[in-house]
This record gives sequence, C-alpha cells and structure tokens, in this order.
Amino acid sequence: MNILFIMYDQLRFDYLSCAGHPHLQTPNFDRVAARGVRFTNAYCQSPICGSSRMSFYTGRYASSHGAQWNGYPLRVGEMTMGDHLRKLGMECWLIGKTHMRADKEGMARLGLDPDSIIGARQSECGFDAWTRDDGLWGQGPDGFYDENRSPYNEYLKSRGYAGENPWADYANAGVENGEIASGWMFRNADKPANIREQDSETPWLTRQAISFIDQASGSWCAHVSYIKPHWPYIVPAPYHDMFGLNHVPAPTRHDCELDDTHPVFKAFLEGKISTAFQRDDVRAKVIPAYMGLIKQCDDQLGVLLDHLVATGRMEDTMIVLTSDHGDYLGDHWMGEKDLFHDPSVKIPLIVSDPRAGADATRGTTCDALVEAIDLAATFVEAAGGEVPRHIIEGRSLMPWLRGETPDWREYVISEYDYAVRPFAADLVASTKDARLFMVFDGRWKMIHAEGGFRPMLFDLETDPEEFHDLAKSGGHDDQIAHMYGHLRDWGLRMSQRVTRSDADLEAMRGKSLRRGILPFLYDGSEVPPELTETYRGAARQIHLPPDTDTGSHD
Amino acid sequence: MNILFIMYDQLRFDYLSCAGHPHLQTPNFDRVAARGVRFTNAYCQSPICGSSRMSFYTGRYASSHGAQWNGYPLRVGEMTMGDHLRKLGMECWLIGKTHMRADKEGMARLGLDPDSIIGARQSECGFDAWTRDDGLWGQGPDGFYDENRSPYNEYLKSRGYAGENPWADYANAGVENGEIASGWMFRNADKPANIREQDSETPWLTRQAISFIDQASGSWCAHVSYIKPHWPYIVPAPYHDMFGLNHVPAPTRHDCELDDTHPVFKAFLEGKISTAFQRDDVRAKVIPAYMGLIKQCDDQLGVLLDHLVATGRMEDTMIVLTSDHGDYLGDHWMGEKDLFHDPSVKIPLIVSDPRAGADATRGTTCDALVEAIDLAATFVEAAGGEVPRHIIEGRSLMPWLRGETPDWREYVISEYDYAVRPFAADLVASTKDARLFMVFDGRWKMIHAEGGFRPMLFDLETDPEEFHDLAKSGGHDDQIAHMYGHLRDWGLRMSQRVTRSDADLEAMRGKSLRRGILPFLYDGSEVPPELTETYRGAARQIHLPPDTDTGSHD
Repeated sequence: MNILFIMYDQLRFDYLSCAGHPHLQTPNFDRVAARGVRFTNAYCQSPICGSSRMSFYTGRYASSHGAQWNGYPLRVGEMTMGDHLRKLGMECWLIGKTHMRADKEGMARLGLDPDSIIGARQSECGFDAWTRDDGLWGQGPDGFYDENRSPYNEYLKSRGYAGENPWADYANAGVENGEIASGWMFRNADKPANIREQDSETPWLTRQAISFIDQASGSWCAHVSYIKPHWPYIVPAPYHDMFGLNHVPAPTRHDCELDDTHPVFKAFLEGKISTAFQRDDVRAKVIPAYMGLIKQCDDQLGVLLDHLVATGRMEDTMIVLTSDHGDYLGDHWMGEKDLFHDPSVKIPLIVSDPRAGADATRGTTCDALVEAIDLAATFVEAAGGEVPRHIIEGRSLMPWLRGETPDWREYVISEYDYAVRPFAADLVASTKDARLFMVFDGRWKMIHAEGGFRPMLFDLETDPEEFHDLAKSGGHDDQIAHMYGHLRDWGLRMSQRVTRSDADLEAMRGKSLRRGILPFLYDGSEVPPELTETYRGAARQIHLPPDTDTGSHD
Repeated sequence: MNILFIMYDQLRFDYLSCAGHPHLQTPNFDRVAARGVRFTNAYCQSPICGSSRMSFYTGRYASSHGAQWNGYPLRVGEMTMGDHLRKLGMECWLIGKTHMRADKEGMARLGLDPDSIIGARQSECGFDAWTRDDGLWGQGPDGFYDENRSPYNEYLKSRGYAGENPWADYANAGVENGEIASGWMFRNADKPANIREQDSETPWLTRQAISFIDQASGSWCAHVSYIKPHWPYIVPAPYHDMFGLNHVPAPTRHDCELDDTHPVFKAFLEGKISTAFQRDDVRAKVIPAYMGLIKQCDDQLGVLLDHLVATGRMEDTMIVLTSDHGDYLGDHWMGEKDLFHDPSVKIPLIVSDPRAGADATRGTTCDALVEAIDLAATFVEAAGGEVPRHIIEGRSLMPWLRGETPDWREYVISEYDYAVRPFAADLVASTKDARLFMVFDGRWKMIHAEGGFRPMLFDLETDPEEFHDLAKSGGHDDQIAHMYGHLRDWGLRMSQRVTRSDADLEAMRGKSLRRGILPFLYDGSEVPPELTETYRGAARQIHLPPDTDTGSHD
C-alpha cells in the first residue's frame, strides 16, 4: 500500500470541473474523483502556506504546533506524518514544497546535527527529501526570499538557461520588446512564460515524482507538492492563452462589505494586494493565467496517473489531491488568501483508495466537515496503524471512504496569525493579539479576533456568498455566544499531552498501589495481604547503626 | 547574583507563623519574609506534584507543557528555567526533588544520549543535578514506585542503616514492640521516626545544599527541593511530639458539601484517602506530625540561612520559599491535594531580593494574583535577562518587589488531570475529558470539568471557607458566563509559538518585499527604484537555450 499525497499550492476548491467550474475542464482531477470521494466541506487549518502545511503534516491545529505563519520554525521534536508512518513501516518522502522552516535554534540546543538522518528529517518536517523546492525564488536588495538551494534553478541551469536565477528570468517571466517582462507584474500575466513548457515547474516536478516512484520499493507515502497555481501568475505556452476575458467571472463582492467593515478585514482590504485585485484589469490578466496554470497541473496529473497505470501502481496506491488554501482572486475585494471566506479557507480534497473497502463510495461526494489535519490520521489508518489521538488532532477519513457515517465533529476551526503584517502594529498592542480564529459549523461562520475586536458572523444558509457580516448590526447575540462556546471548548482541548497515549494512561490507573504508595492506611487492615510487606518489616533490621558522627555526613 | 529557590513539598500556605498559624512558630520562614515580600494570593498551576513542578520549571501552564500529572514525561525540547538562565550566564542546579519524568521515547526519536550533557539536562528538567532524589521510595510487589537511584538511600546505607530500602525501615518508620511500625500507617504518625534526626531527609538535603553552595562559583540558581512535609507523615524526635491534640484545628468542612456534590468532587470524596481524612483519629495523628515536619523544615532553613550569613551569600542571593501545592488535611472532607479549595491549590510564596531596589518592600505582603509560573519569569529578570514571553507564560514579580503596581492579570488558572485515577473510567468516556480547570479572580472561583458536567462556583467574599457551591442551585448564570469568558480567553492564549519572539516577528514585518516577493504589481510603478531590478532583467539573458531534449530531463 502506497500513498500519493499530492498538494497544489493556492488551488481554489471551485476551480475544478468536478467541483462545477463553468469553463475549466480538469479531466484528470475528475478521473481521481470518479475513483474516490470528493470532500465538499474541507477546510485548511490556516489560510497561509506554511502554517496550513504544518497542520497537514503534523495532523495538529496551528495553535498546537505553533508554526502559525510562513517562516515560523516548526519546533524541534514536533511529530509529523513521517514519524508516524515510518513507525508503521511506511517510508515518507517529499517531492516539492513544504514551506518548512527548521527550528535551528532548538536543534542546536539539543545538539542535533542537521546533516544527520534525524537532523535532516527534523529540518524537512519529518520527510525524507527526494526533492525539496519551495518554488518562490524571489530575489531583491536583501537577497533571496528563500535561503535554501533550489533544485529547480539548478535544473534550469543544467538545461542551459542562463544567469544566477533562471527561475526569475525564464519560468517567472515573459518577453516584451526584447526585455524581460516579469511575472511579478500582473500586466504580463497574459504573456507566455519565457521557457519551454517541459522545463516549467509543473512538468519538472511531475518527472521528479515519476523518478521517485520508479525506484521506490516497499511501502511509501510520497508528498508530491506542486508550487502552482500559486502566484506569480504566468504560464508557458500553450496554457497562457487557453482562457480569456469571457472566462473571467464577475467578482463575488458586495458594496456592503465596505461599510462598517471589521477593522482587521479593513486592514487587509487596504493593503497593496487587495487594492490590486479590486481592479478589473488585474483580474482580467490574472484569472486566465491562473486557469492556465491549473490546466497545466491537470495535464501533468494525467501524465502521473498514466504512469501509475502503466506501472501497476494504480492498484496499490491511495491518491489524495488537495491544496493548502484557496485564492480570493478579487472576491470580497481581496487578493491572495489570509482570511476566512470560502474562496480562501475552503480547499479541494479528493481521496481515492484502491482497496475494495472503498468500492461503495467511488465517484461520490461527502459533505462532512473535514479539516486538513484529518489527512495525517487517515494516512496512519491507511498504513495499518492506530491513530495516536494524544498527538494527532485530526480524525481518519477512512470511515467515510468505506461509506460509514461516523460520529463526527460539529465545527471546523481555522486560524490566522497576522503578527508579521506591518498593519499589526496599528491594530493590536501585542503580537500575541494579532490572531484570528474561524469557527464554522456548516451553516454559521464566526470569526473571532483577539485584541478586543467584535467578531464577524455569516449565515451561509441565507447568505452563501458571505457578504453580510451579521455581527455589525447586533441581534445575533445568542448565535455568537453559541459559536464562542465552540471556540471555548476547542481552546480547552487536550493538545500537548503528547508523551502518554490514552492506553498508557489507562494502564497507569491504580499502579502506584502495587509499588508501595499507600497514603491512606490507618492500621494496615485496609490492604490485601500481598501488600502488607510494604509496611511490615519485623523481620528486617530495626536497630539504629552505631553513631559514627564525625561532624561530616556526606 | 544567585537564586536560592527552595521548595517544600505539600506545604500548606497557612502553616507558617508569618501566615498567621495560631500554634506553629516558623521563625526562619518569618525571617525571610521580613527581608522580602510574602505573596498572599499565590496559586499553583496544578495541585499535584509533577504537573505543578513542570509549570514552575517551564514557566508554562500545565496544558501548555503537557506533563499534566505525575509520571507524564515532559516532552523533549520543552524549555525550562535552566535553559533560560544558562543563556544569561547563570548556572541552574538541582538539589532534591523534581518529580520529572524524562521523555525517553522522544529522546530516542531525536537520538539524544541520556548520558550526554544535553541528554542529562533533558532528563532532569533542564537542571544540572547536584543531587536528585524524589523522596518517595515506596516499594511493593511490582517494585519501587520510583525507578531512579536514591542518593538518600545510599547515604543511609553509607551511614550503616541496614537493608535494601533503609528509607522504608528507618526514615519512614517508627518502632513498636520491637517491630517496624511503618510511616505509611497513620496510627504510627505520632511515633518518632526510627532514625537519628541528623540522618533524616530534611537535614540531609540541607547539608547537600550547603555543600553545593560552598563549592559554587560564578552566578547560580540552586533549586533546593525538600520532600517534606509531604506524606508519609512521620518525623524523628524531638519533632514527633512537639505538637498534640490541642494544636489540631477543627476541620474546615460543612455538611452542605455532601449534598448534591459535583460528580468529580464526589468521586474524590469517596476515595480511600478522603475517607481516611474524614476520621478524627486520622487527623489527630497526622496533623501534629505534619506540623513537626514543618518545624524541622524551619529549623533546617535556619541552618541554611545562618550558613549564607556566615559565607557572605546572604548579600548576593535572592531567596525564594514556596511549595508545589497544599494539603487538605481533612478540610472539605478531603485528604491530600488534587482539587481547588485554597488549602490545596494556594501556595506559600516568599521572595527576598537582597538588592537595594527591593528595600522599600521588605517585610510587606502583596495580594496580587500570582501564579507558580511567575517564578521562571522572575528569575530571568533577576538574572538580568528579558523574559521570553513567547515561551514563558508567567510574569516577573520584580515590579512588586520594587514596590511598583504593574498592570496585572485578572485571574489565575489551575488545572487537574485525573485520567489515571481509577474512577475516571466511570466518570468520563475519554481520558481527554478527565480534566478540570479552575478560574479564580480574587473573589469568584469557578471550576470547569470537561465531559459535560456542570461547573462549581464559590464566592470567597461571602463564603471564604468555600463551602457553598453556588452552581448547585442555579441563579448565578451571569457570573458563571463571566468566568467561562475568562476560561475561553485563556484557552485561546498563544502558548506554542515558541520559535519566534515578539521582536523576531516585528522584525519580519515587510521584509519579504526586499527579498523580491512582490505579489501586488501591475506594471512595476508601485515600487521604489531600488526594487525594480527584482523584475527588470533587460540586461540579462532572455533567449532560450538550444533545445537539447533527449527525452530525459533529470
């Protein structure tokens, strides 16, 4: 049994034909959906790459693992799916992006050599790295955004692409009037990337995945983690002009969102990114490129699936397709992700299990409230293990795949830490307060902001587009209190008691008695005879030794 | 500057003469109180040895560090005061008890050798161990309760005390009719322990502390951690008969506590320990012995203080006296600790800072709401450091010592995990639900129990003895909701974002821009000229390399 855990970066849940997109055909995603279950209410634990991924990999909420934004190192020793799966005899490999930042200080404190096997896994979020490339090779006056080495840039150089950073000059650029036309500029999003399609990121990573699969033996989990369709929005021919203005939907936004706006939402709306995505010309350039990137992902998924079929791996490999978060694309006057409207926080999730137990659900959808952390639990069960519920906070999706209806959670949680956003300094007194929490119960979605702000509340039954923040006007106090009750319950969850399993604790019950701890005896009649030796010592020495005190006792 | 951080085990806050005890004179505790500040509203983070201590040592709530009961290992990598103080050039040594259980599984996972310096500190809660002895050498059919080696038992053997476990036969036993009369039996509590006083635990540990101090150089923190007056309740002559029946107060208990009792409280009341302490003859035997043990602690504190004076250490050593929790001694029909009435959860805390800045407060008391986790923060500030507020959740008490009135917390939290109690199986479905939380705001004390139970509520203004659980009768819904609001706020606290300090996060703001991450450009006019190189590459190569495709790309 293998697991092919494929993640696309910033792929909206609704930009797939199986999810009802009106223009974009994604036959290969649909092919997996036809073989498995598509989860229609799946949410990421944080609508930001790094934090979301750390939740996927650890099976734990962002507040539990603590890596609550990009570049916050995952604390040394935090367990990941790699740790759990290897214990079960399943290797766990990385091919692509994780956005993992190693806890170098913690590793140094514990004397862990980053070049040792243990140290390397700690640095790679518990994976063995076949290829690690986070894909954003931005470079400015202060150097590269990502200080890792880029296997993709090295690949481009090996193929003859020139310069220090061919990603910037080829993969992330078009050409205009003989000059580089950077993919960072939205006005260039309709140009073909200045690169052979086969050399662009998505086909390159697909080949990396195939080369991994071809050499793998035994049981493996492969995290194939594409950096697209994440910005910069530029895609090579022929994908750059497959879609046009008539495929760009009107933005899902409403003027009422700009009235009495929640202060944190307002701060995002006033940022450079949102301001850009409020422009029609930006959306007109970006959305067709975004769709082209997804179309290329779908084609490359087809290459991968065909390879699985050809090599027999389709029969013994669970396939999972998902994303770390969505992309506003101008909806709600926002760009990027970061907040909790569905285009940002909801994720696509398709799981196809080749085993007979999942036959009954092939091609179906499931609307249970699913969280990203559920995958780690699912994989442990798929690998034949018992989910370590004292560590993994997610729940296995296997019952749903078998067509069962398990008792299930009442609400999902997502979080966002905006402490490193420059506007945080104006909004909150402490970085501790720069945190948002979403509670969604399938109908009501409440967002709580630390720092003394009012909450936001949406009723997705009457307002599926999430335009009307009902907490503005008051009158929903009971519903708000109810959602805060969920948040309180969740906040008190048992998340750090990670060194003792439930079974360990149950086995400890009453054990100290048989190890001579008896702080309840009056005269000894209270215990069975086999324990009396503990306090009866008549046969033993009771006379004091001679006093040889010389003034020094130790 | 040194810190002498002295902990007594299970010392009630009110069994000191400076705290108003009517019979027990503790002139040496009072001597430290006269030189410092006595905190009259100090609470432990969990009324159980191991969990409370892990909070003292980490400066973090029990739910944050996860070692929520005795014998739950502290997860590998969790930072302690030792880690923080050593960074500031202050050594941090242990002399006595911690109740620390090493996370052997986690250490093995990270390849940490327990015999290395790093491994040894991980195993000893961040301390360097001068002497580690947890003091409970109970032994039964399944072996010793404590699997560590006992330096105290080795000491006794070296002094000629016979047998495998001289602690059991001498320190924890009297003699009756030529037979060992075990200290485990309350009926023997009035007998003198079968040991020379100078060889009993408290003087032995005092000598260990003195031998540490005499050889120490540089700046040090010494955690001198006595195992007394914790049970077994037996004390050598002359302390065994210093106190008698006329010093035993009536129990602080009320029949109304037995009506409509909260189910978790009821389960404790029905246990062997509570049942024993409900007996007058048990209290009559135990309380004088408990007082004798404290009197011995006080005398030995005098020995230690005199030594500090004689060696000049009194002038450069902060002295801290505290306990990990109290002892019900029959109050509220309870024995031991475990629940949240003041005799159990409130702790003595005296802090004496020799420096001039604390002169204004010598001999005063402070009624601020103090938590055990505040000491780790206090020590970091006393050692000249800045409190790492992303890790340590407590707050430095130094402002109070200087006579300032800082903005302060509104409530204290204490927790209790009863998952390993045998009755947990009958009360709750999951070990996760076997958890209690106390919120106390200086007047109202609410106890929340996971698992669907009603809360408990006490008004200490009208009911300082905590007899009347107001949640029984209803009618305090608003107050209960208010306390639950505190609990919610606390549950959402930022406790695991430990790899980035506030200053780190503030420094990250806006940095990605200068590392070439520009996902908001339309045409490049949006950024200052020094950033245009990031996306303008006219001078660089833009022509594709020749296509040398041979069918294999990697």
